[in-house]
Amino acid sequence: MSGPLFVIGGAEDKLRRPTVLREFVEAAGGEHARIAVVPTASSLGPEIVEVYGAVFAKLGALDVFGVRPEDRAQAGDPALVAQIDAATGVFMTGGNQLKLSGVVSGTPFGEAIWRAHRRGAVVGGTSAGASIQSSHMVAFGPGGSTPKQRMTQVAAGLGLLEGCVVDQHFEQRNRYGRLLMIVAQSPHLLGIGVDEDTAAVVHEGTLRVTGRGAVTILDPSAIVTNAHEARRNAPLLASGVQLHVLPAGSTFDLAERRLLPAAGTTDPREAAELGAANRDLRRLARDIAAGDVSPTTLRRRRARRGAAEHD
Amino acid sequence: MSGPLFVIGGAEDKLRRPTVLREFVEAAGGEHARIAVVPTASSLGPEIVEVYGAVFAKLGALDVFGVRPEDRAQAGDPALVAQIDAATGVFMTGGNQLKLSGVVSGTPFGEAIWRAHRRGAVVGGTSAGASIQSSHMVAFGPGGSTPKQRMTQVAAGLGLLEGCVVDQHFEQRNRYGRLLMIVAQSPHLLGIGVDEDTAAVVHEGTLRVTGRGAVTILDPSAIVTNAHEARRNAPLLASGVQLHVLPAGSTFDLAERRLLPAAGTTDPREAAELGAANRDLRRLARDIAAGDVSPTTLRRRRARRGAAEHD
Repeated sequence: MSGPLFVIGGAEDKLRRPTVLREFVEAAGGEHARIAVVPTASSLGPEIVEVYGAVFAKLGALDVFGVRPEDRAQAGDPALVAQIDAATGVFMTGGNQLKLSGVVSGTPFGEAIWRAHRRGAVVGGTSAGASIQSSHMVAFGPGGSTPKQRMTQVAAGLGLLEGCVVDQHFEQRNRYGRLLMIVAQSPHLLGIGVDEDTAAVVHEGTLRVTGRGAVTILDPSAIVTNAHEARRNAPLLASGVQLHVLPAGSTFDLAERRLLPAAGTTDPREAAELGAANRDLRRLARDIAAGDVSPTTLRRRRARRGAAEHD
Repeated sequence: MSGPLFVIGGAEDKLRRPTVLREFVEAAGGEHARIAVVPTASSLGPEIVEVYGAVFAKLGALDVFGVRPEDRAQAGDPALVAQIDAATGVFMTGGNQLKLSGVVSGTPFGEAIWRAHRRGAVVGGTSAGASIQSSHMVAFGPGGSTPKQRMTQVAAGLGLLEGCVVDQHFEQRNRYGRLLMIVAQSPHLLGIGVDEDTAAVVHEGTLRVTGRGAVTILDPSAIVTNAHEARRNAPLLASGVQLHVLPAGSTFDLAERRLLPAAGTTDPREAAELGAANRDLRRLARDIAAGDVSPTTLRRRRARRGAAEHD
């Protein structure tokens, strides 16, 4: 069975409340995890692997190693492929998603990531490492709320998340416009925008949200658009898009494209009051059955007995 | 019959391509317009009226005058009320919408604006002057794409635009979040976000877009939300919101909450080709009818005659 995908919106908390990374480590096997950190997108040196190594160790995973193909030739290296094949978790860092996809897509290394996903390992990534998971990948483009023709470029991602396009830093970089442009031009894609320090965890067709922000879903199934004829960089018509903003704890059915019912949170005080009220009602029902009198009479009788009860 | 409302998203072009203000002046009667500029929201002095006076004059309207109540007492002044009663257009400037609504709402001056609207005068405003037109007015609050509990405040607007909440500078200040928060808390409101240098022109139940940007409509009719129980400033669940992004030229039915069909733009070259193809088909049909032969035979016969035609 395929493993979960962690699609993280960038800038995940690594120190104080590392909710997202903790869940990633747990999904990868906790103390038994073997996590491959793929920093190919990053322009930083070995420090980036050291940072994730330290965070994952603090969260209980001690076996963490960097695997860094820097070009397509290296992405064919059997030694690197073997490291992915041995991992229970693969984590792709942020950086430049075009570099990451340009190096790994369609190579033995990219295939190893696919294999890892299919054999049940957890595959995750943040920022660039999130974008690359979708079949259609935002390459680059400016922020802005309003979709405009040509404002962003799409390239092919790894496709672990089929039929989707993922954008990250969604709230912080105001990326409604570019995600809307993409789904207006490609209405069979589902647009998924992930805020910073937030993850869309996709497993068995369900998307679950964890972390500090929200995941925004743009469903263009019923869109009316002028994307086929809008000139230059004109604002696009995009009418009838279904919008879902999902904070932590929400779950969403990706096939049906709808929110799943919440597990149900109950206020403890409200629950206590409800319990007391139910007990009162049961007693009242017993009294009525036993005494064969009207509830009003019974209530009066009990009030005379001086029961000090309040609503 | 009520007049049109010009709901302008702020920063409308006053020099090079004053599309929005030109339409406002035309709607107010062009050279016969008498336009009252209400700068109450603004912290600027008489200069702001001078600016609009100069722009409107350049666009053909010579009779432009400032009417500026500064407190609720002045908003009861019959002389100011008479000036609004004499206007064919009322234009409310940008600034602080809470100041504007605090001074004019529920006063004889505010009633005069209502009267102007109902007798067919055009009422418009930009930024603060746009927000105040809706029944429920965004008072203030930060930008950001993700809706969060308590991120914005709602106050009562003039209510010329009933059942709506208007936000402005929509794209430029990233105001998806606060508009989503409001419609999540008040799902019977229609959220209308207007970009800078753009107007939603509302007349007889139809919203038409003009200007450089887009108008974004958030329809929460079918929303699923946790707004009644979200704590502090948590991100809000807002699932199932219908989203419409409408560039210039779009029209939207506010009662039915749906895009109206476009008047239809045709590429002249495509139209010429289509015309030629139709003529060919008619001739072919005539030939078939006359010759009682198969279309294939006829085509071959005509080809032999050496007709130099191309697809």
